[in-house]
Amino acid sequence: MKSFTNKEIAALEHLYKINLINSATGFKSANLVGSISNSGIENVSVFSSVVHFGSAPPLLGMVFRPTTVARNTYDNIKENQYYSLNHIHQDMMKEAHHTSAKYPFEVNEFDKTALEQEYKPDSKVPFVKGAPVQLLMKYANEYTIKENGTILLLGEIEKLYVQPQLIHNDGFIDLSKGNVVTINGLDGYVKTELIERLPYQRPKK
Amino acid sequence: MKSFTNKEIAALEHLYKINLINSATGFKSANLVGSISNSGIENVSVFSSVVHFGSAPPLLGMVFRPTTVARNTYDNIKENQYYSLNHIHQDMMKEAHHTSAKYPFEVNEFDKTALEQEYKPDSKVPFVKGAPVQLLMKYANEYTIKENGTILLLGEIEKLYVQPQLIHNDGFIDLSKGNVVTINGLDGYVKTELIERLPYQRPKK
Repeated sequence: MKSFTNKEIAALEHLYKINLINSATGFKSANLVGSISNSGIENVSVFSSVVHFGSAPPLLGMVFRPTTVARNTYDNIKENQYYSLNHIHQDMMKEAHHTSAKYPFEVNEFDKTALEQEYKPDSKVPFVKGAPVQLLMKYANEYTIKENGTILLLGEIEKLYVQPQLIHNDGFIDLSKGNVVTINGLDGYVKTELIERLPYQRPKK
Repeated sequence: MKSFTNKEIAALEHLYKINLINSATGFKSANLVGSISNSGIENVSVFSSVVHFGSAPPLLGMVFRPTTVARNTYDNIKENQYYSLNHIHQDMMKEAHHTSAKYPFEVNEFDKTALEQEYKPDSKVPFVKGAPVQLLMKYANEYTIKENGTILLLGEIEKLYVQPQLIHNDGFIDLSKGNVVTINGLDGYVKTELIERLPYQRPKK
């Protein structure tokens, strides 16, 4: 095995380091976050840090890095409390990745990509049309990570939309069947195939 | 689209609800966490909540639910500060999934599965032999999520081991090439194929 100590990691060239460490968690979720400022400027931005924190209430977290373009999303969420999560279909991955470009606040990424906004009857935030899974989220809380200034933002699922053919009888959503991608590192887009669902495990005698 | 409001989610049958909400983030990382108590009892347990929090220092988070078997892992980490993360290869997924069985503290999951422990010369925690990526982690901090009592535990990478053929020239680790799986929901094990790495994006004029 090739190895890297923490001192060696700290001394790596910047791009090498961020590629390496961003690949080191394993695969990541691929979401487009839709938001809108109170002044009406829409934003859509790719995130790979959405993680499950609980099912009752249904609570999801995402990580914001203080100095990135993603702060437009953060500011919008703080302003109006609501945002959308949209799973990235393989056919939209190039457009989704383009939202990582550092546009100023006043630019609407929907105008710079082929991604299309969609407004549901009962919400005021933009969703991404065609996403196989869409979630309307409401801001719940945030925790500032003192080690590096990142922010863990928690939101509660207000409403969940799923393509009906993806849902198994027991509530499982088959993301591979929906052609949802996963992310490897900073820039690797990955297609998937469900091997199998494994049964609930009980201790062996 | 099939839809579920937050009230409808709260009223769902328990298993349906946890399957649905655990699938709603998108794909999840698949790791085996290796740990050991000060009394010498090893533990290995599957986690799907490891997420990147920063590259300098290299900081990864994972989520502990207060009432699950995973607390053996938490207790071990609190006792000796170190633990290992091991990416799950497709060939070990059934054994990995079995570690979700609720064994009492005194049972060593390495004895109940075909997973083999591996000790590196410079560390006292068990790694999982054959994992394509292995990380020696040191406890950094924890944040209790007041909304539901879960714990976000942060650790710093002390040492990273990677199969050399997986590393690109710029530090990217090709997890698909290493047959690392990703997890869908609570029990779906998924194989992957890298579609492509997309270039760094700059704003369009």
